[in-house]
Amino acid sequence: MPKLDLDTIPQTNRTGYPSPFDEPVQGRWYRRLAPASGLTAFGVSHVVLRPGAWSAQRHWHEGEDEFLVMISGEAVLVDDDGDHVLGPGDCAAFPMGDRNGHHLQNRSDKDCVFVVVGAGDNLGGDYPDIDMRFTADDRYVHNDGSDYDTQRAR
Amino acid sequence: MPKLDLDTIPQTNRTGYPSPFDEPVQGRWYRRLAPASGLTAFGVSHVVLRPGAWSAQRHWHEGEDEFLVMISGEAVLVDDDGDHVLGPGDCAAFPMGDRNGHHLQNRSDKDCVFVVVGAGDNLGGDYPDIDMRFTADDRYVHNDGSDYDTQRAR
Repeated sequence: MPKLDLDTIPQTNRTGYPSPFDEPVQGRWYRRLAPASGLTAFGVSHVVLRPGAWSAQRHWHEGEDEFLVMISGEAVLVDDDGDHVLGPGDCAAFPMGDRNGHHLQNRSDKDCVFVVVGAGDNLGGDYPDIDMRFTADDRYVHNDGSDYDTQRAR
Repeated sequence: MPKLDLDTIPQTNRTGYPSPFDEPVQGRWYRRLAPASGLTAFGVSHVVLRPGAWSAQRHWHEGEDEFLVMISGEAVLVDDDGDHVLGPGDCAAFPMGDRNGHHLQNRSDKDCVFVVVGAGDNLGGDYPDIDMRFTADDRYVHNDGSDYDTQRAR
């Protein structure tokens, strides 16, 4: 059935971030739409950010493109150039290898909803604001290369 | 700049469909967001359908996944199972090789807006309602394999 019944697709706030980096994403509730619908060429997540929640730690990907479109509510896209308010219909694109770390923050008092698409190869990437990077084999490491004790949730 | 300024991205209603199949898509105004933003792992189109317009002739792709999310207004997704109304936030997925032809029709009296993502390999596909198929080398052909005199617009 091409039209998706979102209510039937499991929603989770799971994260593999080690403490305390997991705290800002506790209010990020997402559904993986590609496995639920038979898509294999790219990933799609439907994400609800509760008030105060972040989409992720600010990050960039070495080998994966990301694209997002806001559906409802308002979020603030934070990148190297500062804050950019996103409302319904606004789009943002994050090309692979562009080291401009980005994430969304819901600073409003209402939920916001967006869809984000990703594809490419996991070649790792960085969280420029914190002592953490992610690797091509889904480990979190300190900037000195030593491991954290958690694995990425995919 | 990750946040896209849609107004600066060229919009077109170009189509390669031969006459008379081009008529229902004259009111389809789209922007190609991937080349405008540096994405290469998938394609993204931002589409405005004027009242009465179709997104395409009803079709399916042999080797490309498609995903769409409605932003504003209302459209009717037509597939082998009939009509499915899509409103803001509704999502639909069309896995490669699934021969359930699909398109959107704007039967309302207002514009509707959606974003559609596609990726995979162009292996051709079919328009089940009309005497036309598309080929892996971007030709339109009759069901008997003979060429139309137009090329696909990509």
